[in-house]
Amino acid sequence: MFENQERTNIESLGEFGLIDHLTKKIDLKNKSSQKGVGDDAAVIDFNGKRALVSTDMLLEGIHFDLAYTPLKHLGYKAIQVNLSDIYAMNGIASQVLVSLGISSRFPLEAIEELYEGIYLACEKYNVDLVGGDTTSSRQGLVISVTVLGYADEKDIVYRNGAEAGDLVCVSGDLGGAYVGLQLLEREKMVYLENPNIQPDLEGKDYIVERQLKPEARKDIVELLKELGVKPTSMIDISDGLASEILHICTQSDKGCNLYEEKIPIDPMTYSTAREFNLDPTICALSGGEDYELLFTIKQADYEKMKNLADISFIGYITESSAGRNLIAKSGAVHELKAQGWNAFNKKH
Amino acid sequence: MFENQERTNIESLGEFGLIDHLTKKIDLKNKSSQKGVGDDAAVIDFNGKRALVSTDMLLEGIHFDLAYTPLKHLGYKAIQVNLSDIYAMNGIASQVLVSLGISSRFPLEAIEELYEGIYLACEKYNVDLVGGDTTSSRQGLVISVTVLGYADEKDIVYRNGAEAGDLVCVSGDLGGAYVGLQLLEREKMVYLENPNIQPDLEGKDYIVERQLKPEARKDIVELLKELGVKPTSMIDISDGLASEILHICTQSDKGCNLYEEKIPIDPMTYSTAREFNLDPTICALSGGEDYELLFTIKQADYEKMKNLADISFIGYITESSAGRNLIAKSGAVHELKAQGWNAFNKKH
Repeated sequence: MFENQERTNIESLGEFGLIDHLTKKIDLKNKSSQKGVGDDAAVIDFNGKRALVSTDMLLEGIHFDLAYTPLKHLGYKAIQVNLSDIYAMNGIASQVLVSLGISSRFPLEAIEELYEGIYLACEKYNVDLVGGDTTSSRQGLVISVTVLGYADEKDIVYRNGAEAGDLVCVSGDLGGAYVGLQLLEREKMVYLENPNIQPDLEGKDYIVERQLKPEARKDIVELLKELGVKPTSMIDISDGLASEILHICTQSDKGCNLYEEKIPIDPMTYSTAREFNLDPTICALSGGEDYELLFTIKQADYEKMKNLADISFIGYITESSAGRNLIAKSGAVHELKAQGWNAFNKKH
Repeated sequence: MFENQERTNIESLGEFGLIDHLTKKIDLKNKSSQKGVGDDAAVIDFNGKRALVSTDMLLEGIHFDLAYTPLKHLGYKAIQVNLSDIYAMNGIASQVLVSLGISSRFPLEAIEELYEGIYLACEKYNVDLVGGDTTSSRQGLVISVTVLGYADEKDIVYRNGAEAGDLVCVSGDLGGAYVGLQLLEREKMVYLENPNIQPDLEGKDYIVERQLKPEARKDIVELLKELGVKPTSMIDISDGLASEILHICTQSDKGCNLYEEKIPIDPMTYSTAREFNLDPTICALSGGEDYELLFTIKQADYEKMKNLADISFIGYITESSAGRNLIAKSGAVHELKAQGWNAFNKKH
C-alpha cells in the first residue's frame, strides 16, 4: 500500500530518533500538563497534587517468549516494568489499567494465570487494577499497561536535574536480567533440538528470576524519603546502564565519569556471563531489563547513604565538556555509548 | 503449551463474561481509587479533583483493515474512541498516551500519517499527547491509547444512576458507522476480485465518515453544562444502542421502554442498510461504533432540552420488573438483547 510513496526505514532513525521525530512538534496546551514526553512518566497537575502516568506495551515475540516465560511471571513483570517508571519519578504508584489482546490459542486458564501474576504484583505493591480493554488478537499476545501514581510537586525527580559534582548511584546489581535471558534462550535451543533433555537451570535461580520476575524498587523511594535524601535526577534501568546515564547527562546537559570496578554485578551474573563468553561489564552497561534505579545525589547527602548495602556509588557528574566516560579497571578511559540489546523499542 | 491442562474456550464466556470473571475479585485498596472497572472510565481522587482515566486497544485485522482505512483517519479515530469514554463520564479530556507496535512493513512516512491524525484529533479537542511507548511488532499494527480527563465530583455521571421515569436520550444518529463498514467491506471485495474497478462510494460520504472518522461528543457535554442539565446516567455507544442501554439498566437495576420509531437514523444510513438487505433498526441497535452519547435525564429537565435538534428522546426508564423492551413500529413488544457485531471485544 505504500508502493508509490517515499519510504524511509524506521530503523534508520536510530533508537530514539523515531520518538524525537514524531513528538518534536508537541506544544502542550493544557496547563495541567506539567511534563509530557521525555521522562519516565508524564506529570499532570490536579489541584496541586501531581498525577504521574506512564505506559508500556509488551508484544509476544518481541518482549517475551512463551516457550520459557510462565504466564504468571509475565503478568507480574508487565506490572513491575510500569511501576518502575513511577518510582523513577520518586512517586508512589497507585493504579493500573491493563489491556490485553488475546489470540484464540489461549484458553481461559492461560488468561487466569496471567491475571494471577498481575494481581500478585498489584497486591504486593498496593496498586489497584481500575480498568483496561480486552480484545481478541489475530496474532500473538499483546499486553499494554498504563500506571498512575502521585507525588507532591516538591518531591518529583526528573532526569534533568544532575549537577557537576553529584554522585551517581545505582540500586541492587546489574546485568543479571540479560544473562538470565541468555541462559533461557540456550535452554530453549537445547529443548528444540531434543525435547527429552530437561532444562539445566540448576543453581541459576537468581539470574533467571532477574529476567522473568523483576521487582520494581519501591523500597528505594521509601528509603530515600526516610533518609531525607531527594536525588537530583533519576531514571529506571530498562535499557542498560549506559543508555540511562546518557539520558541523564543529555537532559541535564552534563558529563560523567563512571568507574567499571564500582558497577555492582552479582557473582552469579559474573560467572554465567563468562560461561557465555560475555563481558560482565558489557552486560551491565547494555543488557537492560534490570529495573534498578539510577540516580544522582548531592555530595552533601553521601554521609546519609554511604553505609547502605543495596546502593552503589559508581561515579560522578561532570561538566558537559568533560564528556561521558567509563574508566575501565585497567585505567583506560572509554566513551560511554548506548547499545541497548533491543534497538527499536523505546519508551517516551 | 496447554496440552495437559483444562481448557475453557474464552468465547464460551460470552461478551462480558471474561471481564467479570477476571475482575470479580478486585478489592480497591487505595482510597484515591473512587471507581474501578465497570464504567466508561475509572475515577481517581486527587485532592478533591477527580481524574478520569480510560484505555482502548486497536489491533489490525480486528478493529481496522488497512485495505480501506487511511492511516491518518485511523490515528484520528484511535484518539476519538478514547475521548468518547471521558465525555461519557461528563468529564473533559485533557491528555492522551499513545503506544504503538509497528511492523517492519511500515515506512516512517506511514507512521507520520498515523500521527498526523493523532495530532489533528488532539488539536481539535484540546488534548495533549504526553507519553507512550513505541516498539516493533512482529505482525500487524497495534495501537493502545490511554486518555486522562477531569471533572468535579459533583459533575461525574456514572452508568448506575438512572431512575424509573427518567427519559432516555441519544445524541446524533445511529447505525451509520456499521452501514458504512458494510459499504467499505463490499468495495474491498469488489477490488480484490478486480483491481481495475474503482471503489463506488459516490454520495456515501456521510456513512463512510461515520465509520472512518467518528467525532466524540464533547459538544454534548458542554451543551449539558450550559443548559444546567446533569444526566442521571450516561454511556457512549461503542457496541450498539441495545448493549449500552442494557448496561445502564443493569447497573441502575432498572428496566426501560424504547420506541423503535424514535431511534434517530440518518436517511442515508436507512437507504444504504436497505440496499444491503439489513434492517436499519438492527443496525442502530447492534451496529456500534457510532460514539454517540446515550443518557438519561429527569423528566423535569425535558423543557430545557426538548428543542435541541441533535438530541432524540427514545424512551424512558422503568422499574426493573417491567423488563427491557423495544416497542416496534407495529406496536409489538420485543425484549432488548445485546448482540454486538464483535462478540469478543470488551472494554472494562
